[in-house]
Amino acid sequence: MIYTLKEAIKLNLTEANAFLMISESTHNADMYYATGFLANDSFIYLYSKEEHLIVPDMEMGRAKKESRVKDVIPTSKFGLIEKMKKLKDADTAYCEMCVDLLRENFAEKVTVPNNFPVQLADCLRKKGLEIIPVKSPFRDLREIKKEVEIKAITTAQRAGEKALAEGLSAIKKAKVRNGVLWNEDRPLSTENVRAVIERSLLSYSCEAPDIIIACGGGSSDPHWQGEGDLLSDEPIVIDMVPRTKKERYFSDMTRTVMRGTPCGELKDMYDAVKESQAAAIKKIRAEVTGSEIHGIVCDVLEDRGYETARGKSGEFTEGFIHSTGHGVGLDIHEGPNLSESGKELKAGCVVTVEPGLYYKDRGGVRLEDVVVVTKSGCKNLTIFEKNLVL
Amino acid sequence: MIYTLKEAIKLNLTEANAFLMISESTHNADMYYATGFLANDSFIYLYSKEEHLIVPDMEMGRAKKESRVKDVIPTSKFGLIEKMKKLKDADTAYCEMCVDLLRENFAEKVTVPNNFPVQLADCLRKKGLEIIPVKSPFRDLREIKKEVEIKAITTAQRAGEKALAEGLSAIKKAKVRNGVLWNEDRPLSTENVRAVIERSLLSYSCEAPDIIIACGGGSSDPHWQGEGDLLSDEPIVIDMVPRTKKERYFSDMTRTVMRGTPCGELKDMYDAVKESQAAAIKKIRAEVTGSEIHGIVCDVLEDRGYETARGKSGEFTEGFIHSTGHGVGLDIHEGPNLSESGKELKAGCVVTVEPGLYYKDRGGVRLEDVVVVTKSGCKNLTIFEKNLVL
Repeated sequence: MIYTLKEAIKLNLTEANAFLMISESTHNADMYYATGFLANDSFIYLYSKEEHLIVPDMEMGRAKKESRVKDVIPTSKFGLIEKMKKLKDADTAYCEMCVDLLRENFAEKVTVPNNFPVQLADCLRKKGLEIIPVKSPFRDLREIKKEVEIKAITTAQRAGEKALAEGLSAIKKAKVRNGVLWNEDRPLSTENVRAVIERSLLSYSCEAPDIIIACGGGSSDPHWQGEGDLLSDEPIVIDMVPRTKKERYFSDMTRTVMRGTPCGELKDMYDAVKESQAAAIKKIRAEVTGSEIHGIVCDVLEDRGYETARGKSGEFTEGFIHSTGHGVGLDIHEGPNLSESGKELKAGCVVTVEPGLYYKDRGGVRLEDVVVVTKSGCKNLTIFEKNLVL
Repeated sequence: MIYTLKEAIKLNLTEANAFLMISESTHNADMYYATGFLANDSFIYLYSKEEHLIVPDMEMGRAKKESRVKDVIPTSKFGLIEKMKKLKDADTAYCEMCVDLLRENFAEKVTVPNNFPVQLADCLRKKGLEIIPVKSPFRDLREIKKEVEIKAITTAQRAGEKALAEGLSAIKKAKVRNGVLWNEDRPLSTENVRAVIERSLLSYSCEAPDIIIACGGGSSDPHWQGEGDLLSDEPIVIDMVPRTKKERYFSDMTRTVMRGTPCGELKDMYDAVKESQAAAIKKIRAEVTGSEIHGIVCDVLEDRGYETARGKSGEFTEGFIHSTGHGVGLDIHEGPNLSESGKELKAGCVVTVEPGLYYKDRGGVRLEDVVVVTKSGCKNLTIFEKNLVL
């Protein structure tokens, strides 16, 4: 079991004597996780006996205040601007600065994350440094959420549920005219409902990028964002990743709803998905593998006569065409996976459980809850009702 | 002059016979620019005589519909899942798939962007492929905006201005009590004004991540996001990057405002910043360098007795401590730069002009407009008034 960030890095060092990450931290969750410092522009995290942060001079004040790393150093200490003037190339100058930094810290063998930029790695290697790519040392650590992280995810989830309730209320109140939903004197569109949800999330200091509201046949594409007027008697798949703007933790939830009357086939699909989800959630606990949980979903769906991608090769575009779930936290998609290759779950993992069925002629059905794995089972963070017909 | 995406890639190939990018495209703007396909998970763009897109099977439908690349191939064609089962490691399996893909396209010498993941590059090299990191072939292309791109930036900017007007209106309407701004029965906070601006942006189908509303001494840190109650007689720096959610283009704008009476020093700072900005905008046209424009701002500010970071080495944290501006588009920060090392501007570049002055005891002042460079001058896309006192 890995307990601290430093221990996690040390475990990955093997024979190396330093760990180096260079990235911005608004999109690179590892960088934000390791430093606690949010910045749009690239900065350096170096672990070599102690932790060091190297930031542009302009960021010094904020980095000292906001980062969890104590030793914050301005790039001017390594004469970055002078190097740029002399070498007339920003990349070469940056590499030279890294060489100085590493030499100063007696770091000759350096581990870097697998996604470290190849150009900089090549440049450092040419200067005689050994650069060893490793899987993120924070991956396992990030998979097991601390109380404060679970709290942030729960906050995001609650906001998402309140926002979804407002969105569904707009759909529920709409009048049906000739197969189209109407709000007073105009059709109710995907865009209208998305705006209702987004405004509501804002009022809880949350946000959700790219909310899916997919209605009709298009919902058979699980990642189609959706557009245009909402229709009656057609499934409406609403999938959103609410995030607390302050802590930057995501949750993830999906509901499939409908105004009007579902055809028998769609009703059956909904029931099958709901049943497969319940069966999976029932079995989730520490030490069970993600693969087993995915297998349970496939079993239920196949028993009911639906095809799943399990064990298939070649292009597969109808039925249950994706995996059962994924970890969620600072990233929308992180470990562990509930998929064919899913490894053992651990207490503290937060995973989605999101079976779905997709057919081009009928559309899609997906239900998604987020659960925290515990020793004896799991705690469902999602408390939103599951009803197909509004 | 580079005219098409393919020509841009070819220019960068030199002796290589393919160009390979592997990334998600919601944060990697090059990937979105090259493919027009928005996806949270990694996919492959390969240019080798023709363009190819390799996506997870589940994304096939959407990729065929939404991408500008015609040849869309599912990862199942290369047996990715079978490879994962056989090799028991996702990274190795992915590398094997890339090897198959490259061999099928007779690609032996392959250029990749500088930020290509080192682990995958190392793995491909071990398989006998030559991997050559190059500066993004899309960098120069992206700097020169097409009409449709300028239109999207302008849309974002107009939404930003309308939203800012609503935010300022809330500040203007506030009552002043004991140095604090009040809205009816409670203090008016940074968070309140941020919510007003965000809600307004949403109503124009725009968004802005991490809006800065920095009041008081803290505004002397140009990147401090701000928090807490707004104060009278203190500068309030509002900096936002409105983005159209559909086209995904950013604009960028900053205003500094105040309720109450500015001290003489702050008024002088404001006038100096405003004058330096006007002088810079007056000189912007194609063929002038970003360095010259930055120099003009420094000249004006130094003439008025303020220190600038120009020519300085060592940590520098008061006065004019950042560069004059940067390109803006699919990324908030892209080329060209208006800085000491800024290169020649070209017609069609869209750049910010954002001088600022920062003193720990007085706070900060920054004004930021966005302009399109033309042959004979520039067009200011920002039409929002500049008044310190509301």
